Amino acid sequence: MCMMNEEEKNRRAAEKWEGAEAMKKESVVKAALLGLGTVGSGVYKLVERQKEQLPAKTGMQLEIAKILVHDMKKERPGVRRELLTDSFEEILKDSDIQIVIEVVGGIEPAKRMIMDALKAGKNVVTANKDLIAAHGRELLNTAEEHHVDLLFEASVAGGIPIINPLKECLAGNEILSVMGIVNGTTNYILTKMTEEGMDFDEALKRAQELGYAEADPTSDIEGHDAGRKVAILASIAFHSKVTFKDVYVEGITRITSRDIAYAEEFGNVIKLLGIARNEGGEIEAAVYPMMLPKDHPLASVRDSFNAVFVQGDAVGDTMFYGRGAGELPTASAVMADVLRILRNIRCGCNGRIGCTCYRNLPMKPIEESQHKYYVRMLVENRPGVLAQITGTLAEQGVSIEKVVQKVFRDNKAEVVIITEKIQERYVKNALDEFRRSPVIYDISNILREY
Amino acid sequence: MCMMNEEEKNRRAAEKWEGAEAMKKESVVKAALLGLGTVGSGVYKLVERQKEQLPAKTGMQLEIAKILVHDMKKERPGVRRELLTDSFEEILKDSDIQIVIEVVGGIEPAKRMIMDALKAGKNVVTANKDLIAAHGRELLNTAEEHHVDLLFEASVAGGIPIINPLKECLAGNEILSVMGIVNGTTNYILTKMTEEGMDFDEALKRAQELGYAEADPTSDIEGHDAGRKVAILASIAFHSKVTFKDVYVEGITRITSRDIAYAEEFGNVIKLLGIARNEGGEIEAAVYPMMLPKDHPLASVRDSFNAVFVQGDAVGDTMFYGRGAGELPTASAVMADVLRILRNIRCGCNGRIGCTCYRNLPMKPIEESQHKYYVRMLVENRPGVLAQITGTLAEQGVSIEKVVQKVFRDNKAEVVIITEKIQERYVKNALDEFRRSPVIYDISNILREY
Repeated sequence: MCMMNEEEKNRRAAEKWEGAEAMKKESVVKAALLGLGTVGSGVYKLVERQKEQLPAKTGMQLEIAKILVHDMKKERPGVRRELLTDSFEEILKDSDIQIVIEVVGGIEPAKRMIMDALKAGKNVVTANKDLIAAHGRELLNTAEEHHVDLLFEASVAGGIPIINPLKECLAGNEILSVMGIVNGTTNYILTKMTEEGMDFDEALKRAQELGYAEADPTSDIEGHDAGRKVAILASIAFHSKVTFKDVYVEGITRITSRDIAYAEEFGNVIKLLGIARNEGGEIEAAVYPMMLPKDHPLASVRDSFNAVFVQGDAVGDTMFYGRGAGELPTASAVMADVLRILRNIRCGCNGRIGCTCYRNLPMKPIEESQHKYYVRMLVENRPGVLAQITGTLAEQGVSIEKVVQKVFRDNKAEVVIITEKIQERYVKNALDEFRRSPVIYDISNILREY
Repeated sequence: MCMMNEEEKNRRAAEKWEGAEAMKKESVVKAALLGLGTVGSGVYKLVERQKEQLPAKTGMQLEIAKILVHDMKKERPGVRRELLTDSFEEILKDSDIQIVIEVVGGIEPAKRMIMDALKAGKNVVTANKDLIAAHGRELLNTAEEHHVDLLFEASVAGGIPIINPLKECLAGNEILSVMGIVNGTTNYILTKMTEEGMDFDEALKRAQELGYAEADPTSDIEGHDAGRKVAILASIAFHSKVTFKDVYVEGITRITSRDIAYAEEFGNVIKLLGIARNEGGEIEAAVYPMMLPKDHPLASVRDSFNAVFVQGDAVGDTMFYGRGAGELPTASAVMADVLRILRNIRCGCNGRIGCTCYRNLPMKPIEESQHKYYVRMLVENRPGVLAQITGTLAEQGVSIEKVVQKVFRDNKAEVVIITEKIQERYVKNALDEFRRSPVIYDISNILREY
C-alpha cells in the first residue's frame, strides 16, 4: 500500500519508474516458448501486454527470444517471424535463455526437452499435467540438483491458483482433503443435463460444438484427465507420492437423466469430483461422479468452471474457483510462474521451493472407503421383490436410509436405494448378490453420496 | 510429486529426514509473538503442531522464543511460562530473534513495535488491518530499506489466501475488479435475515451470542471493518495507493425484512460487498449492501464465511472462499507468512516482494459510479402519485426497468422502483426531488443492484 503524502509518493513512484526503466535496459531476462498452440499464443500475448508492467512488478524485464514450432511456414499473425525456430538445440545452446516455457504437452519430446533445459541450468515453467503426473518427482529432483525452478501451476485447474496456494498459502496446515471439479468438459455436460434436461449424448455434442470437448472425448468423460490432476493435487497436499495409476477413476458415461432426476428429488446435484483424502495416514485418491448436497460450495460451480475445495486442520473449509482451461486463463497461470522465476532470478533464489514430498504414505483401496451409496435398479414388479432386496442388503450388513420404488409398464419397477454410510466392499458384495438374482433385471447405476 | 521406484524414494525420503533432523539442530530460527489473544494462541498452537513438519517443509526449524503479554500473572494453559515477557525491549535487543509476529492489533503501540523490529533487521508478520490500511506504505518502505519481509496475509479475509494470490498468482493479469464478502459478522446477519426471516436486531443479537459480533458492533455493521480491507485489496490489486478515507462506506443497518423480501421476489440476495474497480484508470473503492443475482458465485457464500471475487484481464472470473476470522483460520494465514519468511531466510532472499504500488491512480467519486438502483418508498395512495414519481425520474434522465406498488392500510402505498443502469448522481437528484414531494412520505431504502 502507498500511505504517504502525495509529493513523497510521486517522488518514489517516479524513482521506481526510472529504476524500472534502468532495469529494462540492464537486466532483461530471455525466455523461450516451446509450442505456439492455444496456450503458447496466450502466453505470448500476455508477455506483450505486461511488457510495461513487468519491470515495476518484478524488477526485471522479460523477452521472448525464441519460439519452438513444428511448421516454420505456417502464418502466425501477431508473432515476429524471426523468433520462430524448429530447433530445440538452438534454444538449449543459447546461454542467454534463462527460462523455458513448455506448452507442447504430452510426454515426449516434452520430457527430454525439459530435462535438457534443467540440466543446462535453465528454469522451466510447464502446463503439462500428463508429464508432471507421471514424472514430476524425477523432473523436480533434476531441477533441485541444478538449483533452478520447475513450476507447473497451469497443470491443474488452468487459471485457478491452487498449486502455489497448497505449497505456500496453506503450508501451515495439515491438509485433510482436497475435492475438486477439475474437468470443465464434464462439468459443462452435467450442468446441461441438470439445468436443461439434455441427455448425455446431446450435452456432449454441444460441448464438442463449443470446443469444450475434443473429437475423442474419452480422456475427459472417462475421468482420466481429472485423475492426473488428482494425482498432482494429492502429492502436493499430503507431501507423498501419488501417481495416476494410484487413482481410482470412474467417468460420467453411465449417468442418465433418471439419475439427474433422482438427484434433484433428493436435494442433490451430480458432479464429477476428483477427491484426495488423508484418512489417518492412508491416502484415498479417486475420481467419480458424486451426489452432492445443493448447499455444498462445489454444487453451485456451473458450466465449464472449475473449483478446488480444500480442508485444512487450521484453515477449515476453503475453495478456489475459476476457469480451468482456455487460452488466457491457462496463460495467466503460466505467467504467474514466470513472474516467480523473474523475482527469484532478481534475488538469486531460484529453487526456493522444490519437491515437497517428504513422506511415503500408503494408498487406501477404494473398497475400504466409506460413503452413502445411491443404487438404481430395474426389477420385476411383484410382491416380495423389495423384501428380497432389502433382505440381501441386511445380510451384507448394509443399512438403508431411503427406498423409492417407481412402477413401469410390462410389470417392471425401478427401485432406488440410498444406503447409510458404509464401507464400499459391503455394498459391492450386495451388488454381486443382486446380479445373481432372477428378479433384478439390471443394476442401472451406483453413485456415491457426499 | 514423487514418481520414482520405492527403494529410491525411500532412500531419498530418509535422506530428507536426516537432512531435516540435521537442520533442526543447525538452523533454528527464533521468533517472538507480540500478543497472546485469540490469534496469538492460534499461532502458538500451530507452531507446536507443525514442529515436526517445518524442517521438511522449509529446511528450517522454528522456535517461539519469547511472547509479549500485558499481564504476566494471568494463567495461560499450554504455554511455557518462561517464554512470557512484558518488555518489548527485551525482544528487540535479542539479536537471535529474526521474526516478529504482531497480533496485538490497533495502531499503537503496534506501529512503533513493528517499525523498531524492521529497523532492527527483523522480519515481521502482522494480522493488523487497521495498521496496514493506514500506514502500510510507510511500513513496507522501512522493510525494503532494511531488506526484510513485512507480510500481512491475515489482515484481509482471515484464513483465505488473497494477498499473496494477488501479489503472485495473478501477477500476470491486469486486475479489473475485486468484489468481496470480507466481513463475516454482517454476512451472518444478512444470511439469518434471508434464510430465517429474522429482523436485523434479532440477527445481530444472535451474532453477538455466538461471538461473531462485538459488544459494540459499529465497526462491522457500519462497514468500517470491510472498508479497511477494501483499501488494502484495492492498493494491491491496482498497484496504487488507496486508504480507508478513499473508500465510500455504507453499512447494513437500514436493511429491513421488506428489502430482503423484495430481493427474493426479484431473484436476488442482499450482500454487504467490498468493491474495488479499475474504471479506465480511475479507482472505485466502496463498501455497500448490494442486490446480487442468486446465481452469482458470491450469492451462495453463507453465514460467517468470506469470499473474494477477482476479475483479471487474462484469468477472467476467479473466487477465493473460506473462513474470514477465528483463531485457527487466521493463524493459518499468519503461519503461511512465517513459512515464507523461513524459506526466504534459507535462501537469503528476504524482501523478495516488497510494496507493489508503482502507480498513482485517481479515485473515482461514488456519484460517477454506474449501477441499477432499487428504491423503496412509502407514498400517498391516490391516483397520479405513481405518474408523479415516474415523471420526476424521467425529468432526471433515469429510465425505469421495473415498478412494484403494494397498497397498505390508511391509504399509504409502498412503491419499489428498479432503475436501468445509470450514473449515481442522476438518481441522487431524483431522490432530492422526492424528498421535497408532499405525496412521498418516506424513502425507506436505496440499494445498488449488480
